[in-house]
Amino acid sequence: MADVERVYERADERIDEIGFGGLKLIQKPKEFCYGVDAVILADFAAKSVKKAPELIIDLGTGTGVIPLILSYKTDAADIRGVEVQTGSWERAVRSAELNSLSHRLTFINGDIKDVGQTWGQDMGGQADVVVSNPPYFKSGGAIVNGLSAKAVARHETTADLMDFMRCAAYLLKPKGDFFMVHRPSRLADICCFGREQGLEPKTMRFVSPSKECAANILLVHMVKGGGAELKLLPTLAVYDSEGNYTEELLESYNREVK
Amino acid sequence: MADVERVYERADERIDEIGFGGLKLIQKPKEFCYGVDAVILADFAAKSVKKAPELIIDLGTGTGVIPLILSYKTDAADIRGVEVQTGSWERAVRSAELNSLSHRLTFINGDIKDVGQTWGQDMGGQADVVVSNPPYFKSGGAIVNGLSAKAVARHETTADLMDFMRCAAYLLKPKGDFFMVHRPSRLADICCFGREQGLEPKTMRFVSPSKECAANILLVHMVKGGGAELKLLPTLAVYDSEGNYTEELLESYNREVK
Repeated sequence: MADVERVYERADERIDEIGFGGLKLIQKPKEFCYGVDAVILADFAAKSVKKAPELIIDLGTGTGVIPLILSYKTDAADIRGVEVQTGSWERAVRSAELNSLSHRLTFINGDIKDVGQTWGQDMGGQADVVVSNPPYFKSGGAIVNGLSAKAVARHETTADLMDFMRCAAYLLKPKGDFFMVHRPSRLADICCFGREQGLEPKTMRFVSPSKECAANILLVHMVKGGGAELKLLPTLAVYDSEGNYTEELLESYNREVK
Repeated sequence: MADVERVYERADERIDEIGFGGLKLIQKPKEFCYGVDAVILADFAAKSVKKAPELIIDLGTGTGVIPLILSYKTDAADIRGVEVQTGSWERAVRSAELNSLSHRLTFINGDIKDVGQTWGQDMGGQADVVVSNPPYFKSGGAIVNGLSAKAVARHETTADLMDFMRCAAYLLKPKGDFFMVHRPSRLADICCFGREQGLEPKTMRFVSPSKECAANILLVHMVKGGGAELKLLPTLAVYDSEGNYTEELLESYNREVK
């Protein structure tokens, strides 16, 4: 390991090479490690934005993997991540430093629910793009993991889906783009909460383990103040019939088919 | 043609054998002929209902193809169709007679918007199941066909999506099932209008021309007073990679793979 990395890595942490031009990410496996959802969300957002965004904000950024990937996949000069957990937030800050990206990536240690109050007072209506991979499970809806950091990352313990959507609507410019990854089981909530917050679903893409299975991930693109007309994209399959990653999935990781 | 059919068939009409144990349907091709949407909706509803329904109501029944198929696929004793267009309604009545099913199939010539007023005053909260293949297009959203009967069948000229959902909610028992086929472009409307009317989306199934394409048909099962949790089924492909109907599609027509 290079000396520079020793400075950044701490106890129980690890530094992963995540691709995208050699980006490195500091994670603490006991708490949370990013998954395919974050990667395909970043890819979905990067491919969908019409013109180069100036300000992108990631809600519930964890250790900052989505801002890192978006720094590679977009030309945005200002990418900010918001994270309520101090440990994850602090690792995100160090990852930005480790990649010499602190001039483009900044991180706010704040609660989604407190936007405009304890943080983001100057950010209302400023963002071109908001992205989010929020906790999927209702606080009472699944077995809550014993480790509290994991629980907060996966369950709606601090902020819930409506809080995330309200926060996105607050931060976005009119006609700004919100990209979210979630579970198909929350589809009706996403549509109804979104409309309540002035975020209209414009594009959806389901992601399924294979072409034969029901989808278990939903990518949604909403537009602040958009009109009511939804476009459905072909389903993205993660694995092909032989159990290998599909070409399209590998592309979102910027990896070539072997 | 058998003599009995001559009595029922009139100018510009035709009598089609539609399968399902030899059912016959009177249609007027110049006005509207049923399509795959009606068949897969009937199949989706018949397979999804938990116990034998007593009363099923089809909203916007056209020439009554869905009630006919449901008379074959379910044990329901009382299946009623509602149709605003007098010509289609009258053909539905004759089709029921032609199939000797008038004891189970009845048709109401009424406007969806007028439920509880000009028709259905005694039907509020009575239906176990409501089904509907409503007009897909907003009245201003697509080129309106010159033939007025076709226009009413395809466009929201008389009643719109919200009217159909309000009518379904009025007719259904608590926890009653509503099955609808529509376009994925109206997904957000379906979720939001449904929730507004107390109809919660519980199961969705997308239908696509093939496994590679985006879905162009949406089957949705809503429950009156149901909880917020949606189950997504695997997508139904209409054609296989060789351009033949898929096995599952043929099954919904009760036809065997050749």
